[in-house]
Amino acid sequence: MGKVYLIGAGPGAPDLLTLRAAEILRRAGVVFHDALVHPRTLDLAWRADKIAVGKRSGRHSTAQKFINKRLVDAARRYRVVARLKGGDPMLFGRAQEEIEALREAGIDFEIVPGVTAATAVAAELGVSLTRRGLARHVVFVTPRAASGARDNDWAASVLAADTAVIYMGAGLAEAISSELIRRGKPGETPLALVESATLPDRKALHGTLVELPELALKAGAGPAVVLLGEVLQDALVDRRRAAVDDIEASLKQA
Amino acid sequence: MGKVYLIGAGPGAPDLLTLRAAEILRRAGVVFHDALVHPRTLDLAWRADKIAVGKRSGRHSTAQKFINKRLVDAARRYRVVARLKGGDPMLFGRAQEEIEALREAGIDFEIVPGVTAATAVAAELGVSLTRRGLARHVVFVTPRAASGARDNDWAASVLAADTAVIYMGAGLAEAISSELIRRGKPGETPLALVESATLPDRKALHGTLVELPELALKAGAGPAVVLLGEVLQDALVDRRRAAVDDIEASLKQA
Repeated sequence: MGKVYLIGAGPGAPDLLTLRAAEILRRAGVVFHDALVHPRTLDLAWRADKIAVGKRSGRHSTAQKFINKRLVDAARRYRVVARLKGGDPMLFGRAQEEIEALREAGIDFEIVPGVTAATAVAAELGVSLTRRGLARHVVFVTPRAASGARDNDWAASVLAADTAVIYMGAGLAEAISSELIRRGKPGETPLALVESATLPDRKALHGTLVELPELALKAGAGPAVVLLGEVLQDALVDRRRAAVDDIEASLKQA
Repeated sequence: MGKVYLIGAGPGAPDLLTLRAAEILRRAGVVFHDALVHPRTLDLAWRADKIAVGKRSGRHSTAQKFINKRLVDAARRYRVVARLKGGDPMLFGRAQEEIEALREAGIDFEIVPGVTAATAVAAELGVSLTRRGLARHVVFVTPRAASGARDNDWAASVLAADTAVIYMGAGLAEAISSELIRRGKPGETPLALVESATLPDRKALHGTLVELPELALKAGAGPAVVLLGEVLQDALVDRRRAAVDDIEASLKQA
């Protein structure tokens, strides 16, 4: 019987993988990976069969059961089975269902943490999520348009935290902005919308909460993260000052 | 003029460093590191001068200004300057003061994110911080006994979030437990207290919010993280069942 490793592949750039993950990939006989894992990360698993198991939205549960079954089957055929997930497996990685399937089948497994998009984005922007004197807590949240159960009240957690990192679903910018403003978050709260963090086609847009829908239109279709809170204020001011300088410079040239 | 890299060294185990961080350390001429960085991580910087800059509590601001100055000075003497911090620099890493000092001095810098203790602990426990259907948001917070300013209300952020990860200061277990219960968090909320995560002397203790002070007494003096929320329920039940099984087995033997 083999062992299954649930591995966080990090925020995007292949060199933000951990040394431990790289070592396991080198030994892996098979790799099951999400669509967003970088090709160069997969190259590390030089002798492994590579199987893409990206889920289509709306068909989650069927797909998940199928992935669970494939992991269990693979552990009976390979000594080292790698399951690569974008970011960190324990933060919006939906690892729990796979863990439970492995436990039920009596298969040995280990989870390898990864760098999550939130701190990678903060690093790229040069903005601390918990700036001393300004922010003592940061919430990581994924909102959904529908609400109901207690854990659906994503907005309450954002309102109570100094800094919020919203792992944003496509098309939710309008709902996020309007719901937070309706619940009392000031429309001028500074934010940054970052798409494809740590990758060459990365896009970072600065603005305020009320401008989020507009920023989302300017961004592309890649996975996006929104950082929201006073810690973003200096970055926003810098960006706007630079924009004014650009306009003044082009006026002088004209 | 050299370049300064503010690097997250990860949660403790040296192989949870990123490939990018390892590569920079190999090129570094000097490394400034916190007390908690693993010796084997420092060994990667084989040709660098190594300088410990751990801060003593209570003498923060003087020490921080001194570290800032040393980083600026080092960038004038070395091509590659590494500043290694435990965990991730942008999450309770107090990187902002160093970033501002480097910006003011006009020194080139880059921030390299790391695996934070929260997700490493979740990986070790096999507990997803955002379990589907149970938790949609997780707050990372560091409490302080004193309160006052808005960002001091760490308890409000814990109360609003499905899951909380508390980066705990020494001697704060009693204050955390009593404040959260006073504000309405049920005393039977499941939690785990993990000390020295990912290291050989790691200790994980399961219990409930009301039992936190008692668990903290059982733990040692190492850096501790508390995971709190319904996502810990299964782990707690498993642990208690195992304890009962142990007692029954020893009774049978007797």
